[in-house]
Amino acid sequence: MSRERLIYLPLGGAGEIGMNAYVYGYGKPGEERLILVDLGVAFSDMDTSPGVDLIWADISWLKENVDRLEAIFITHAHEDHVGAVAHCHEALRAPIYARTFTANIARRKMDELGHPADTVTTASAWPETIKAGPFTVGFLPVSHSIPESAGLVIDTPAGRIVHTGDFKLDPEPMVGEAFDPDLWGEIGKGGVRALVCDSTNVFSPNPGRSEAEVGPEIIKLVAGASGMVVATTFASNVARVRTLAEAGIRAGRSVVLLGRAMRRMIEASIETGVLTDFPSVLSAEEAQDVPRDHLMLIVTGSQGERRAASAQLARGKYRGLEMTEGDLFLFSSKTIPGNEKDVIRIINQLSEKGVDVVDDSSGLYHVSGHANRPDLERMHALVDPQMVIPMHGEHRHLREHARLAEAGGRQGVVAVNGTMLDLSGNAPVVAGHVETGRTYLDGTIQVGALDGVVRDRIRMALNGHVTVTVILDEEDEPLGEPWCDLIGLPEIGSSNAPLVEVMEEDLNQFLMRSNQKTLRDDDRLEEALKRIARQTAQSELGKKPEVTVVISRMR
Amino acid sequence: MSRERLIYLPLGGAGEIGMNAYVYGYGKPGEERLILVDLGVAFSDMDTSPGVDLIWADISWLKENVDRLEAIFITHAHEDHVGAVAHCHEALRAPIYARTFTANIARRKMDELGHPADTVTTASAWPETIKAGPFTVGFLPVSHSIPESAGLVIDTPAGRIVHTGDFKLDPEPMVGEAFDPDLWGEIGKGGVRALVCDSTNVFSPNPGRSEAEVGPEIIKLVAGASGMVVATTFASNVARVRTLAEAGIRAGRSVVLLGRAMRRMIEASIETGVLTDFPSVLSAEEAQDVPRDHLMLIVTGSQGERRAASAQLARGKYRGLEMTEGDLFLFSSKTIPGNEKDVIRIINQLSEKGVDVVDDSSGLYHVSGHANRPDLERMHALVDPQMVIPMHGEHRHLREHARLAEAGGRQGVVAVNGTMLDLSGNAPVVAGHVETGRTYLDGTIQVGALDGVVRDRIRMALNGHVTVTVILDEEDEPLGEPWCDLIGLPEIGSSNAPLVEVMEEDLNQFLMRSNQKTLRDDDRLEEALKRIARQTAQSELGKKPEVTVVISRMR
Repeated sequence: MSRERLIYLPLGGAGEIGMNAYVYGYGKPGEERLILVDLGVAFSDMDTSPGVDLIWADISWLKENVDRLEAIFITHAHEDHVGAVAHCHEALRAPIYARTFTANIARRKMDELGHPADTVTTASAWPETIKAGPFTVGFLPVSHSIPESAGLVIDTPAGRIVHTGDFKLDPEPMVGEAFDPDLWGEIGKGGVRALVCDSTNVFSPNPGRSEAEVGPEIIKLVAGASGMVVATTFASNVARVRTLAEAGIRAGRSVVLLGRAMRRMIEASIETGVLTDFPSVLSAEEAQDVPRDHLMLIVTGSQGERRAASAQLARGKYRGLEMTEGDLFLFSSKTIPGNEKDVIRIINQLSEKGVDVVDDSSGLYHVSGHANRPDLERMHALVDPQMVIPMHGEHRHLREHARLAEAGGRQGVVAVNGTMLDLSGNAPVVAGHVETGRTYLDGTIQVGALDGVVRDRIRMALNGHVTVTVILDEEDEPLGEPWCDLIGLPEIGSSNAPLVEVMEEDLNQFLMRSNQKTLRDDDRLEEALKRIARQTAQSELGKKPEVTVVISRMR
Repeated sequence: MSRERLIYLPLGGAGEIGMNAYVYGYGKPGEERLILVDLGVAFSDMDTSPGVDLIWADISWLKENVDRLEAIFITHAHEDHVGAVAHCHEALRAPIYARTFTANIARRKMDELGHPADTVTTASAWPETIKAGPFTVGFLPVSHSIPESAGLVIDTPAGRIVHTGDFKLDPEPMVGEAFDPDLWGEIGKGGVRALVCDSTNVFSPNPGRSEAEVGPEIIKLVAGASGMVVATTFASNVARVRTLAEAGIRAGRSVVLLGRAMRRMIEASIETGVLTDFPSVLSAEEAQDVPRDHLMLIVTGSQGERRAASAQLARGKYRGLEMTEGDLFLFSSKTIPGNEKDVIRIINQLSEKGVDVVDDSSGLYHVSGHANRPDLERMHALVDPQMVIPMHGEHRHLREHARLAEAGGRQGVVAVNGTMLDLSGNAPVVAGHVETGRTYLDGTIQVGALDGVVRDRIRMALNGHVTVTVILDEEDEPLGEPWCDLIGLPEIGSSNAPLVEVMEEDLNQFLMRSNQKTLRDDDRLEEALKRIARQTAQSELGKKPEVTVVISRMR
């Protein structure tokens, strides 16, 4: 009989920034009782996942072992940590624990999909703990760019794990708890087996800056503005939203919140008591009667999202409000890699309107929510673990973070999604590998990233599509000529005739030449028609389209 | 009879960085004799132009007035300045002038499309000039990140225009001519009507740095490397390629050039004499016999292009060579906005192999080829024009550059693609607007960006595609049941049955209910079938696909 062990198994988040999902288990091999930390989403893009609505980690392994799952713990309310809980609820059905604000957001998500609110339990902060099978879990407050973020203290029979969640070392986060080095140091005192640690900013060489630093700069900027001021940031950065609102009020401006996420986050913050002093705001309708130099709009869409308030204001009107020459637009945010083109599009559209755009390039109007390299070193030292397991990062971040740990004299181990580590001994041991991947929410349906659905869509986007229709009579002879329908292909090819005609002619020639053996065999005929349609397109357009062949037989 | 005038008309490049094409004209309104400066390409992306091979400015206006076109002048051999000359040759047929190196590259492009080499004429540098109708044009050497870049001195009866092309103020560009402030100052002495000026780096606040600065840093880096060293940069940055090669040689390494563009650019440089001291290189085959710590590979793909040598080395082997633990990969380049994800993918793949990646974030291993803000001010002062017309930039760059000119006491005017300026008077006047846009090379066919070809492909990428086939007999009654072929859609919908079956059933129900009026009318029937297929998909998948309806009638 084998001994009990402590395992760590990232399903998402260890190989990308997004779709976090980390499993811990304790028990005999294959019988470990499990908990899941975070269940977030990533976002689609045209390059790899056109038309996809949301992405999260493939939790097949967890579903197969769902009877062993004790509970789900959510560290904070960012979409990449909480975004998939409601979508996976039916598959997992485990109790969900989170602190007040996070639980509020999680319940809204449950509600949207028709799940009961009581699936989410509000947890108190450390030193309170929750018992989940062999695990005792406490929510340790930590500063981040959203209220009530928490690290998790996970006590197991094999020792203590500290899972940081997303964090920064902010002595003055403006909203929510300041980072408390004494508290975190205390946690480490009894010995910590592993620190599972945020890696996002491991390449940022200087100590992170406090949320408190941006306030005075934003106040100065808004005070000096003459027209309408519009500012965008992540809606969930409640401290920043409050700072922006305060800058508006100080400059004698009325504040307007635009965008559903913006209003919902402030609503949740007030509801849960994390925000007690937010100024009163005007509706978009009320704002229309206010002179533009007395207005401060705080809007969604800091990443250039096409349907968000920022993009709509850049294109034209949004809810009756419009920007014009002499107005100011502030990006109090960082552009996430991959979103540059969308953000730049907005800046250019605003430029065409004569709007002055101020962004983060000066470093004055935004600070990151993640711990930088020296902050990570400080965290390692405070918690003083036996080993550091980097998470929340692409491979390059995990690798660099592991090196940083090693440089500090600690074991650092890179474990990417699907790698099961045994943490029971003095050194981490790879205990196995689990199939992982991505699940796509496509409309209302969940599909696997490798199911081929999206691959086929990408092929049509690159190559266009042709439908070839052929009808055969009772004797398997062509009834009339074949015909083609083209989508996403140039009409006229290199022979200067309509492509559809050239293609139909080539297909007809083939049918007239074909013997009964080919005409009688659907697979053979389809294969041949497809090949000819593609050859014709290649010679006429220099491009091989996707082809659907429809063969109808009159028998 | 109206007086003669001098016009400026950007068709591409004034509203984006890429696809440069600037028209100048002199004569009576509507009868101006024309010259074109540059004819470059932009690159496609999945978001806006999936499957498109190349993009250039819509030159319809120029084609309509092709009898007035005297000549085409190419400032330098970057793709965004020369990339479309061969593709547009048949439409324009004007003589093309360029300096030796640029002409060599342009002729290669002509040759690839089967056009004769004598369509390109090699021009000598200033003070030599070329007469083209009312214009006298001289190529004024200027430093940039490619050999033999030139500004154009364009003399007209209405005064002198200086068109900078792309430039930086580099006293030591390593390959090609240093920037000569005396020469450029001299040009301005007789009075310059307009400076049409590169705007790329107007937001970069510090003076630009010399190409000479990167050499010592790269030499130091390569000298300290222990495994194989692989470096990437733009192939056309011949000075950088030579610096990289030299760093390899100094460290006792054999140099290998990988990637077609890399070998072609060095070949053209040697052929035209701009490069006389390039070290001898090994082929990929020869390199396989050399110990990896004695190799320095210089490869294409600095922007993460999937088929380039860099991406192939990151994924696996390339021509028998493979990177491994302890090797070094250097990006001696800047990531162009929009390419971040592709570059990051490579970095992560290299990280998985244990390769150390060094990029431009330290500022040590790359310098820009464009003039920064203070350099632009210096250029304005040197040439001392009556007005500054910013080009080579997005709207935000043009606007900022115009402001910079105004701040320096000069007229600055933003003229985006399609804006015709009359430069004859003391102040520029908008003389009209011309339809502009983008031409796509799709395979081998040129299509307009707004023709709908690419729009349809994007829709299929987002929504998937359904083919609905129906056969009707001589009495317009359905012959058998309709059937559906699905591409890019989940197989099972919310009712837990195959979507194709649910859809066929819904369509069949409709056909059985339909009256002769509908069944007899192709348009009406198609419309209805399309609507039902989309409704079924919406209710089953939450998604409305593109639908092709094929109706066959037995009559």
